[in-house]
Amino acid sequence: MLKFFFGPQSCALASHIALEEAGADYEAVRLDLKAGDQRKPDYLKVNPKGRVPALVTDRGVLTENPAILAFIAQTHPEKKLAPLDDAYAFGRIQAFNAYLCATVHVAHAHKLRGYRWADEQSSFDDMKRKVPETVAACFELIENELLEGPWVAGAGFSIADPYLFTLSSWLEGDGVDPKRFPKVLDHRNRMAERPAVQKVLPLHS
Amino acid sequence: MLKFFFGPQSCALASHIALEEAGADYEAVRLDLKAGDQRKPDYLKVNPKGRVPALVTDRGVLTENPAILAFIAQTHPEKKLAPLDDAYAFGRIQAFNAYLCATVHVAHAHKLRGYRWADEQSSFDDMKRKVPETVAACFELIENELLEGPWVAGAGFSIADPYLFTLSSWLEGDGVDPKRFPKVLDHRNRMAERPAVQKVLPLHS
Ligand SMILES: N[C@@H](CCC(=O)N[C@@H](CS)C(=O)NCC(=O)O)C(=O)O
Ligand SMILES: N[C@@H](CCC(=O)N[C@@H](CS)C(=O)NCC(=O)O)C(=O)O
Repeated sequence: MLKFFFGPQSCALASHIALEEAGADYEAVRLDLKAGDQRKPDYLKVNPKGRVPALVTDRGVLTENPAILAFIAQTHPEKKLAPLDDAYAFGRIQAFNAYLCATVHVAHAHKLRGYRWADEQSSFDDMKRKVPETVAACFELIENELLEGPWVAGAGFSIADPYLFTLSSWLEGDGVDPKRFPKVLDHRNRMAERPAVQKVLPLHS
Repeated sequence: MLKFFFGPQSCALASHIALEEAGADYEAVRLDLKAGDQRKPDYLKVNPKGRVPALVTDRGVLTENPAILAFIAQTHPEKKLAPLDDAYAFGRIQAFNAYLCATVHVAHAHKLRGYRWADEQSSFDDMKRKVPETVAACFELIENELLEGPWVAGAGFSIADPYLFTLSSWLEGDGVDPKRFPKVLDHRNRMAERPAVQKVLPLHS
């Protein structure tokens, strides 16, 4: 059985929703990120990065949302969570997820995690002030260029959708009005109605 | 035929090497990033993010190194650049590439691209000072936990190798002595001997 490590209000929500959408056989373990569970020796043995999510399989551990999401799709092919036989269509979804991971999530992280990249309080304040602008720029690109609609990759629901849902649910907290991005907001609302989301979301609050 | 957009001394080197390793049929187009080619209207039609790499296929455009790398592996299966029939082994390589993309590359980018996440000169200086520490921490994790050796994923060369080579070639510029990381340095030296690297690298200087 898979073992899935997550923390509340974290990016791990994306992979958690995908596990539910896939009907995967898994046990979920919640870490208290504020108490620093992710840096305790036991967890560092699972994921030496000290981050969530981590997915323990019978072969070893997978980290990083884009990798875990593709793994879930590939190990549950009957759920059609990604176009597994179409390298280009799969690549588009992977490109979307890489953008969320390396650009959108990173823009957001400068609000509370500035100490990862700087040392001075004045820098943290500066970074924090800029988050509404950088996050909005990301969602402008998503709204106008990347989100095909109704789902990220068009007609078919995929592993890109729970990931977008997770990051778009941070918009208000990042000082960005989601009404500026009607397609993203509509996507978020439709995601919120899915049984997988309704089952998992309460565990993340 | 594929069309590949890159810039000198950029992360696009990773996908460029992989195209060569795959023996792909492609044309390479070099942008002058210092002159701002990546923000000119013609290129923004290709990649509205204004970044390299971008790979134009007959179906449309792929961006983001991890996505392009997986696409190259999947469309050239005979080259065995990724374990395409093993979701876990593929997931390990994808996790490695996601880490390079979202953590290692991002740590490095705080040296010269601080304006992406802040506005004040004092913040840029602060970020720049911290780069040797943050980049070294990433490579410590790679050296001790992630790089299986001799190649990233063990015995078999894969799409993770050109990506690691690309980012490890930035170490000196980031103020980190590569001798601190013998496995990474050995990997870099072996990569430098590969015909694909020797063909592509001069185009990136
Ligand atoms: N690139 C990673 C990012 C993982 C990550 O940064 N997770 C955050 C939660 S959103 C975390 O574990 N933070 C805890 C900490 O920084 O101590 C992924 O996409 O999985
Ligand atoms: N996550 C992207 C990052 C792409 C990226 O940041 N490319 C840089 C070169 S290393 C670039 O195009 N910079 C030009 C600019 O910022 O104007 C990927 O892995 O492909």
